[in-house]
Amino acid sequence: MAARTLRLLIEYDGTDFAGWQRQIGQRTVQGCLEEAFVAMTGQSLHVQGAGRTDAGVHADGQAASVRLESRIPSDAFLRGLNTHLAPDVAVLEVSDAAPDFDARRAARGKIYRYRLWNHALRAPQRRRDTWHVRAPLDLHAMRAAAATLVGEHDFRAFRASDCERRTTVRLIQRLEVERQGALLTCEVEGTAFLKNMVRILVGTLVAVGRGEMSLAAVADLLASGDRTRAGVTAPAHGLTLVRVVY
Amino acid sequence: MAARTLRLLIEYDGTDFAGWQRQIGQRTVQGCLEEAFVAMTGQSLHVQGAGRTDAGVHADGQAASVRLESRIPSDAFLRGLNTHLAPDVAVLEVSDAAPDFDARRAARGKIYRYRLWNHALRAPQRRRDTWHVRAPLDLHAMRAAAATLVGEHDFRAFRASDCERRTTVRLIQRLEVERQGALLTCEVEGTAFLKNMVRILVGTLVAVGRGEMSLAAVADLLASGDRTRAGVTAPAHGLTLVRVVY
Repeated sequence: MAARTLRLLIEYDGTDFAGWQRQIGQRTVQGCLEEAFVAMTGQSLHVQGAGRTDAGVHADGQAASVRLESRIPSDAFLRGLNTHLAPDVAVLEVSDAAPDFDARRAARGKIYRYRLWNHALRAPQRRRDTWHVRAPLDLHAMRAAAATLVGEHDFRAFRASDCERRTTVRLIQRLEVERQGALLTCEVEGTAFLKNMVRILVGTLVAVGRGEMSLAAVADLLASGDRTRAGVTAPAHGLTLVRVVY
Repeated sequence: MAARTLRLLIEYDGTDFAGWQRQIGQRTVQGCLEEAFVAMTGQSLHVQGAGRTDAGVHADGQAASVRLESRIPSDAFLRGLNTHLAPDVAVLEVSDAAPDFDARRAARGKIYRYRLWNHALRAPQRRRDTWHVRAPLDLHAMRAAAATLVGEHDFRAFRASDCERRTTVRLIQRLEVERQGALLTCEVEGTAFLKNMVRILVGTLVAVGRGEMSLAAVADLLASGDRTRAGVTAPAHGLTLVRVVY
């Protein structure tokens, strides 16, 4: 049988997953997908995600690639994989890709959405996909700070302390903040992101929105590269990987 | 201390509740609220809901009344009750009402929303608040059937077999079906509803949308009052009590 490469589009509710990446003894999205492939093909293979998402992070459209030997048509993979997956994860698309397609290397960008519930009272029905921030947030100040962050910058102040990337210059193409009632949504598009970068960006925007950090402080933060001056890392469960750009 | 009556507005995610009504050994919304009142006032009292919701049904705005003796201001009740409640239920408003206010008797109507996920593939992130219907649904046919059901009718074909109401004539003021992508929403407003009536209405609309039941069959169903000819009872988790009208 000839080797094939499949390209997958995957949705998941991150609540009950220990993130994307396979880990022994943990329930992960990658692990569940690889088990579904074993069940269908008998082959133990590697599902390469476009990026790792942390525990609790959701995905509307995670992308992945898989190299395998099989004559099963791609639409039969779509049905079959979903049969072998739990209700909190679904494969939305399966297609044949060029043999050398690698979902991580081929990715040209990613779009993330972060949701906040900005109200004095918590929202029981939005507790799994929003960060509850009680203090009123100044949308205009947040948008001004977002505009400062858009563009190519050294984002070393916006990464987890254990992030191992050597280059920390990244390009943010778009960072928009919208409000609909108590629901505040930050959407960010970039070519690539450092570890926890989106969550630290959001934590910083929230600090600005609460009046705890000035616009000048955000510019200083970018210039200094000092993580200790950035906002907190916003909780994982407010974050969704919307789409991987190819 | 003078007796007072409080009026409450309550939101909940019904997923992990055995419904509204207190039951021994079960986690219910009414039971949790009554425990929160005990914790705050030391008094064991009765929280009267505007209506019972079944296990799995959500509420954006359930209403309730409570008679009690207390000098605690209503805004302190708002904060205090929420402190004593789990994350899947929240009290949104507390106000003093006329001493004889009874949330059930005073209700003039209710608005419910039913959500369907109408797509060949399931939606992991909407699995707790939508009914997944794979077959394509004909929106125009559903709307025509909905128009037949609006008005004052004998809805005895649209109630649970154990419904004990003697009068089965009810008034539906509004029954709207909307589609946004795969998300289909039915919103219904009526003066009062029989047991499972909204879920059987939705089950019937879905039967029409799938082409399994004609418009004439819906009219016959209303005329005959024969439950066995109506659609299935749509699952509870798609249903939300939006608002109680006073």
